[in-house]
Amino acid sequence: MKIAIAQVNPTLGDIKGNTLKIISSIKSADDKGNDIIIFPEMAITGYPPKDLVLDDGFIIKNIQALDEIKKQCRNITAVVGFIDKNDGLHNSAAVISGKEIILKQNKTHLPNYDVFDEKRYFKPAEDSEVIEVKGKKIGIAICEDTWNDGPCELLKEKGAEIILTLTASPYFKGKEKIREEEVLSKRCKKNKIPMIYCNMVGGQDDLIFDGHSYYFNSKGEKIFEAPSFEEGLFYVDTNSEEKTNYEINDTEQVYKALILGIRDYFRKNNFEKAIVGLSGGIDSALTVVLAAEALGKDKVIGMTMPSKYSSKGSVDDSLLLAKNLGISIKTIPIKETFSSYVSALSDEFKGRKEDVAEENVQARIRGNFLMALSNKFGYIVLSTGNKSEIAVGYCTLYGDMSGGLAVLSDIPKTMVYDLTKYYNKMKGKDIIPLSIIKKEPSAELRPDQKDSDSLPEYEILDQILDLYIEKGYGKDAIISEGFDKIIVEKVIRMVKANEYKRYQAALGLKVTSKAFGSGRRMPITNRWTG
Amino acid sequence: MKIAIAQVNPTLGDIKGNTLKIISSIKSADDKGNDIIIFPEMAITGYPPKDLVLDDGFIIKNIQALDEIKKQCRNITAVVGFIDKNDGLHNSAAVISGKEIILKQNKTHLPNYDVFDEKRYFKPAEDSEVIEVKGKKIGIAICEDTWNDGPCELLKEKGAEIILTLTASPYFKGKEKIREEEVLSKRCKKNKIPMIYCNMVGGQDDLIFDGHSYYFNSKGEKIFEAPSFEEGLFYVDTNSEEKTNYEINDTEQVYKALILGIRDYFRKNNFEKAIVGLSGGIDSALTVVLAAEALGKDKVIGMTMPSKYSSKGSVDDSLLLAKNLGISIKTIPIKETFSSYVSALSDEFKGRKEDVAEENVQARIRGNFLMALSNKFGYIVLSTGNKSEIAVGYCTLYGDMSGGLAVLSDIPKTMVYDLTKYYNKMKGKDIIPLSIIKKEPSAELRPDQKDSDSLPEYEILDQILDLYIEKGYGKDAIISEGFDKIIVEKVIRMVKANEYKRYQAALGLKVTSKAFGSGRRMPITNRWTG
Repeated sequence: MKIAIAQVNPTLGDIKGNTLKIISSIKSADDKGNDIIIFPEMAITGYPPKDLVLDDGFIIKNIQALDEIKKQCRNITAVVGFIDKNDGLHNSAAVISGKEIILKQNKTHLPNYDVFDEKRYFKPAEDSEVIEVKGKKIGIAICEDTWNDGPCELLKEKGAEIILTLTASPYFKGKEKIREEEVLSKRCKKNKIPMIYCNMVGGQDDLIFDGHSYYFNSKGEKIFEAPSFEEGLFYVDTNSEEKTNYEINDTEQVYKALILGIRDYFRKNNFEKAIVGLSGGIDSALTVVLAAEALGKDKVIGMTMPSKYSSKGSVDDSLLLAKNLGISIKTIPIKETFSSYVSALSDEFKGRKEDVAEENVQARIRGNFLMALSNKFGYIVLSTGNKSEIAVGYCTLYGDMSGGLAVLSDIPKTMVYDLTKYYNKMKGKDIIPLSIIKKEPSAELRPDQKDSDSLPEYEILDQILDLYIEKGYGKDAIISEGFDKIIVEKVIRMVKANEYKRYQAALGLKVTSKAFGSGRRMPITNRWTG
Repeated sequence: MKIAIAQVNPTLGDIKGNTLKIISSIKSADDKGNDIIIFPEMAITGYPPKDLVLDDGFIIKNIQALDEIKKQCRNITAVVGFIDKNDGLHNSAAVISGKEIILKQNKTHLPNYDVFDEKRYFKPAEDSEVIEVKGKKIGIAICEDTWNDGPCELLKEKGAEIILTLTASPYFKGKEKIREEEVLSKRCKKNKIPMIYCNMVGGQDDLIFDGHSYYFNSKGEKIFEAPSFEEGLFYVDTNSEEKTNYEINDTEQVYKALILGIRDYFRKNNFEKAIVGLSGGIDSALTVVLAAEALGKDKVIGMTMPSKYSSKGSVDDSLLLAKNLGISIKTIPIKETFSSYVSALSDEFKGRKEDVAEENVQARIRGNFLMALSNKFGYIVLSTGNKSEIAVGYCTLYGDMSGGLAVLSDIPKTMVYDLTKYYNKMKGKDIIPLSIIKKEPSAELRPDQKDSDSLPEYEILDQILDLYIEKGYGKDAIISEGFDKIIVEKVIRMVKANEYKRYQAALGLKVTSKAFGSGRRMPITNRWTG
């Protein structure tokens, strides 16, 4: 049996555009003589549609689109993800054959954890049905239904010979190993049934769908895998056991995820150019590099905004980086403007020592300049803070946190270094100057400031944050891993104390199993100190 | 039977403090010879605990607290809301009698819409049990279980003679009518059973619990209602049918909600003073008035930041308002600082007309000054934008949107006028000067600017927004209510185009059935135009 995997990149809410994309894939696969084509979960609407689902017109339009698609299925059978309305709403897959819908298979297990809210909108399936296509018994599963017992076992029981899985499974570092080993291989082996797994690709706000679709045989062996972060139509012949090989390491995956996340955020919102404040530090350097790779060097503007605390090296390093990248760079010194604030505040601040207030004024002046260019020319400001800083609040609200997209907000500082080294190595030259990589991290908001004045070493901080945020360990559990009690307590206190900043943070690209944002819902008013 | 309703105001995560409050209420009610005392849903933890629920230590601590409470129940039976861990987590109520837990009643219907995410954390109850207290058969229901069929009917079937309901039901305008008529009266009448309804009181981030607890008899008549927005211990004798009378209109309710919301946000976060930028307009006037009433006039600072576009009236009106209120007021003109930006940007902006970029620079300078005082002195900035403006994006990100709490973000402009008039009337004098109330709305960011240059009249705008956001009407349905097609389309387009601003907005106090924030989850990247 010849099956086409349509690893497509829909745009949320663009039902017309997504439908055209689906129809053109169907034609193409049909022309090539495929028996079946399978699309991702909710391919017609895009995923996750969030509260658009509560808009009746949106649901009606997506069902009308299915009718359009139906008419285009000549010889091929198409399996298309959509939202069905039938005794409530369902996350569903339509199987179309002979220009008719011959099965609607609803999703049984509705994820309602982390970034997922499917129980907010949908009712679960009550059954799973097997259907015959060209003499073969086919079962359909939707995403979470392959991660949990029930639907696949039921399909096997009912005689299914292959299971086709539609998914919209967002990427995080290490997830492909879980999908391959814990989900697909185990379930295929358990039920002695082969599975095709078609995953969405593309960026949607904070989420990045990685594609990386699969064919696993009934022994649980991986026969085919599609590339990650690339849209495409891929073909599987279930009679062939010839294995493909697709290798990619974690750092490269994260790099590709960020590129796609930036690119799709711009493309799908009709944004054209990005502007990045360059401090001379490694975070803004990596951000501008990613932007240039994602959007093209002529679509990215760097801006240095030196203050009296900026080292000469910081500006020179930024100029060199811009030159290496081939992007244009602007300079607006903030010294005069800062003086004007200091002077305006002199009565109010009389007799007070300089402190974080003056530091933040500078960060906010920079934010204001970046936003002024954004408002005047339509540039989107990319904010540059990494996950470690954002976790402990080492960032200024309305200052360096200003921006439409927080590119590195889920990248711990130690991973920032890994990505930087990966990038220079891939390019075969030090596009990001070594002086930037080797510089001791500093906000340069007061004389001789260093991050290590206020924070634990990043090597330690990132390990604690990984246990606390990603792995969900409590204080005692972290300490029992061998970390210093005082440091652990300080870090946890800082994370808790900065929920209010993150509440107002820009959208950030999720690349770990637990990002700040919609998947981590913390109260601001909270006296729990455990 | 004598039943005490403990309409308490817990602090989220302060398990120790909440436990002490519960124990002291139990003692007090016991001393007064009550048979039963009932607390709100999740009184031990506070509500909603969000992802704190995923922290094992938090759950353990709340169960230990129940053990402490148990020991304090001498003669009285206590019904206490907590989180149980038993084959998964449950939103549960413990019935304590003779220092033992004699029943744990879990919640059946888990709300998972608007601001509620209970299916993210909890498993539903499988049964509802009746228990005998002093010869009377008692049933327990938790919040949503009285809004939906099932649990109460089951309790009646099993012989319950009264149902005690624990709730954490956040306020919105008009909700008490729904609770009384659609929920309590109907369900009591249907099952011919009396109900006690004990609701939480207090502010928790965006949510304001209004208390307003009830006793309804088996004929569905309201016998007793506790005041709204006030903590207290109230007593009901189920043998008495003497009716209390508690009357309060919608505007007064909203006013009290906002006061409690501000007060608790400050108190529970250990914040002391608030600062409000006063533009001379009605929104900032109402905001500073509410702050002064909530926190005390010595805890609130007003600040005027006139620009070259500010009318003389604007500053004078703000000074008069501050004088009427008895709060201190500061003035920092932004003219010089704005000039410094204009000069720094002159190369970049050469040949370009002045536009929204320059307007926003001014708003952001004001944000920066407010935040500078916030950072230096620990004041919390209250932002002043109303719901109508925030809906259509007539506000500046990092400018007037800066702040820790957006007091009016769920108050439509027309309701701002109602509240202002209500306040002056209540005070018996024009604390808010008539010149502020009568002034035509203007952002004063360019010469002779008026809101009506860019927006429909607020009377029209607010009606369209009410239909679109609160009532969830689609475009066509709104037009068929008699509104102009072009205006409706423009308004909807503006609402959609400004999701990115609201994504970074400060926490706002929810007082309508659909506020921006956690109860309205919209994608930013979204091509759905319907």
